[in-house]
Amino acid sequence: MWNSVCEAISAQLGDDRIVKPEDAEGRLLSVTGEAMPPVPILRPRDTEELAKALGICSVHKTPVIPMGGSTGLVGGLRHTGKELYLSLELMNRIESIDPVNRVATVQAGVILQNLHQAAEDVGLLFPVDLGARGSATIGGLISTNAGGEKAFRFGMMRDQVLGLEVVTASGQILDLSNSMIKNNAGYDLKHLFIGAEGTLGIVTRVQLRLRPQLPNVHTAFALISDFSAALELRSKVETALGNDLTAFEVMWPEVYEMTTRHRSGRLPLPVANGIYLLFESEAGTARDPEAFENAMVALYEDGLVEDMAIAASEADRQDMWAIRNDIEAIIRTMSPLLAFDVSLPVSSMESYVNTLNDELTAKWPEARFARFGHMGDNNLHIVVTIGQDTMLRKDEISAIVYEHVIAMKGCISAEHGIGMDKLPWFEMGKTSSAIALMQTIRTALDPNNILNPGKTIGAVG
Amino acid sequence: MWNSVCEAISAQLGDDRIVKPEDAEGRLLSVTGEAMPPVPILRPRDTEELAKALGICSVHKTPVIPMGGSTGLVGGLRHTGKELYLSLELMNRIESIDPVNRVATVQAGVILQNLHQAAEDVGLLFPVDLGARGSATIGGLISTNAGGEKAFRFGMMRDQVLGLEVVTASGQILDLSNSMIKNNAGYDLKHLFIGAEGTLGIVTRVQLRLRPQLPNVHTAFALISDFSAALELRSKVETALGNDLTAFEVMWPEVYEMTTRHRSGRLPLPVANGIYLLFESEAGTARDPEAFENAMVALYEDGLVEDMAIAASEADRQDMWAIRNDIEAIIRTMSPLLAFDVSLPVSSMESYVNTLNDELTAKWPEARFARFGHMGDNNLHIVVTIGQDTMLRKDEISAIVYEHVIAMKGCISAEHGIGMDKLPWFEMGKTSSAIALMQTIRTALDPNNILNPGKTIGAVG
Repeated sequence: MWNSVCEAISAQLGDDRIVKPEDAEGRLLSVTGEAMPPVPILRPRDTEELAKALGICSVHKTPVIPMGGSTGLVGGLRHTGKELYLSLELMNRIESIDPVNRVATVQAGVILQNLHQAAEDVGLLFPVDLGARGSATIGGLISTNAGGEKAFRFGMMRDQVLGLEVVTASGQILDLSNSMIKNNAGYDLKHLFIGAEGTLGIVTRVQLRLRPQLPNVHTAFALISDFSAALELRSKVETALGNDLTAFEVMWPEVYEMTTRHRSGRLPLPVANGIYLLFESEAGTARDPEAFENAMVALYEDGLVEDMAIAASEADRQDMWAIRNDIEAIIRTMSPLLAFDVSLPVSSMESYVNTLNDELTAKWPEARFARFGHMGDNNLHIVVTIGQDTMLRKDEISAIVYEHVIAMKGCISAEHGIGMDKLPWFEMGKTSSAIALMQTIRTALDPNNILNPGKTIGAVG
Repeated sequence: MWNSVCEAISAQLGDDRIVKPEDAEGRLLSVTGEAMPPVPILRPRDTEELAKALGICSVHKTPVIPMGGSTGLVGGLRHTGKELYLSLELMNRIESIDPVNRVATVQAGVILQNLHQAAEDVGLLFPVDLGARGSATIGGLISTNAGGEKAFRFGMMRDQVLGLEVVTASGQILDLSNSMIKNNAGYDLKHLFIGAEGTLGIVTRVQLRLRPQLPNVHTAFALISDFSAALELRSKVETALGNDLTAFEVMWPEVYEMTTRHRSGRLPLPVANGIYLLFESEAGTARDPEAFENAMVALYEDGLVEDMAIAASEADRQDMWAIRNDIEAIIRTMSPLLAFDVSLPVSSMESYVNTLNDELTAKWPEARFARFGHMGDNNLHIVVTIGQDTMLRKDEISAIVYEHVIAMKGCISAEHGIGMDKLPWFEMGKTSSAIALMQTIRTALDPNNILNPGKTIGAVG
């Protein structure tokens, strides 16, 4: 099925640009754990090679599925057996780090952690961070507009991108390079390609904004009685810390219990039936190191907080974040499970969580939950299990989860994207005119429907 | 010429929705000072009325020029005598301010200062600010993606917009409402309409992100020997102040001289032949009030700064900003003049300014300059006069100004947009494929070419 297109590509680019299915075995599992038969992987060495290859795919009408670090969570790598995978793993060069103008120019295959390191080496910061930093690629992060815990302070991936280079479906190189923070000369086309999950073009090179490092880092873990206290606390913490607040995370009690159950050593806070908040401040050197602790003591004395731990060392801090990020512990305890990534007005989060609890346990008394997220930017992660039938009931459970999100004016995908998994729910909360415009744009940019067909906004036409 | 379209609109919406040309006299001067014969002004009362009116304009193929507060600087209101103006001045309602979720929902005709006030009333901040705040409208600010001095900290207008409602050229209402910071469900269509100067649709309603207020404000004015010291100072100030640095402005000596020449009372700094920097820090309450002053004293003791003034009161602070913002003084001193708004890598600003000086004075020995801008976000404003011939030589002077901007990888419009004035230079620094994609999008969204035809990206097709 792939013979003619692969031969044409090999003839143009050389034999080693295609990994054969038999050699690709073991590389093609998505993290959702589905086994999929391998398909060939196209690995261009540079933008020009990719342009040629996409031109050939366009003529052959062979669809292409772009892959980044394969760390996506919405089935973006699912294939129908007809597609080629496209990996930019050979295009992994950090081309330049400009410390004066604070711009990194990198190829799309660069791994996030390598960019973090390169920025750090010149005393700068690239502020998007997430658990998959060791494998997620810049191209994948841009195509999914990745978020993470600092989005409410520094923005999502979209907000770091100054300019980019894209190869379109027909194999045309579209140069939208820019290193300026302010550029109002015509339509800002880059935004079309950010968060489009590779359906409108393949991002190949990018200029990213870097920031000054913030050496003065302080972290606290607080236990409060209920969610309404979390809203009050957020206001007070922001009034005190202002711009320096860079993370504001929430965990319901079951999550703290699960992620600390098998921990050795002292826990920062006791296991209790309250809401856990983890927040962090990052400031310049002019910040009095004791200002954070003083602000925390004032909050404690206010009586809003039941208990509080302040990280006294970097090891303490790492330990707190390890509890927040121990998704493995949740998976171990709850599997089989369904994981949801939604956004909600913070004022509705509590009633949402309660509604979900009531409806799901009424239907499946054995239903259990893990609820946590980036409260600072509306983002809630919800894990649900009803025991052995969980996967069988996926559609019913998803319908309940998403219906209430839409009713409360939230969004069914906060930071993970649509991929394949969320396609059945994609139209919820959207007007038909908005969907029609998305389809118009997709058809204009990919008339042969070869870029990730059937994903993100579904089938077109 | 307008009779049939105006009659059709009046028949549908009522007589008072069109201001006749004879009644519009005196309202239609752009700030660039050109006198233009009046044209009728369409003033819908709500989105539905606008949709009906645009539908009628579309059928009649009558072009429409959207106007905001008429404070634009690039000739966006220039007409050919065939268009209708479209004003949303009757759609000026602040529909809601949600203090918990920090979202303002406003109609596009709301004046910026009114939004500032409404946010302040609930203890919140809307961070985009500029001199025209008393007349610029939210719709105009979105359509031009306005910047201002705090863009490097809080972003431009684009970065404040969570969701919006647009009426398309055909009179369709496109509802892209959203109040979530994180929303990754499909293409983020709102970005198409932000900064498009009304050529792709008319923004009618918008959800804007509000921020916590930062009560701890400190301001300093520094005099340094040369621009290379400014780069060093920026690094040191950011290391000290971190996230709290919200403005970093630069003025060359001629600007300080012009804007202080007729000031009574003591000046914050002497008139000298150096570079003037104005910067501001806004912090939460946990910031030690003396931290700013201590950081400034440390800079001074470093020897990097020739002289420095720290605002000791709000009156001092207002005084410093009045010097920075006294554009009137520049206009009085230099007219006739040409004003340019460009962006440049900070590392190239000095050599850019020198090159410009050399080339222009070689050609016109009487050439004089005023150079200032938002150094923190690459944005330089350059005012040029060569005396009485200035307007006659506009194209030659502009060519020199823009050629070097492009050669140094800057941008010909940092924050003012393209409008009509910058159209001849629009293609500089852009690839033909990028321009073609802009035209494809414009044609797809406005097939009859009735929205601001001939502006922003020029004639299509």
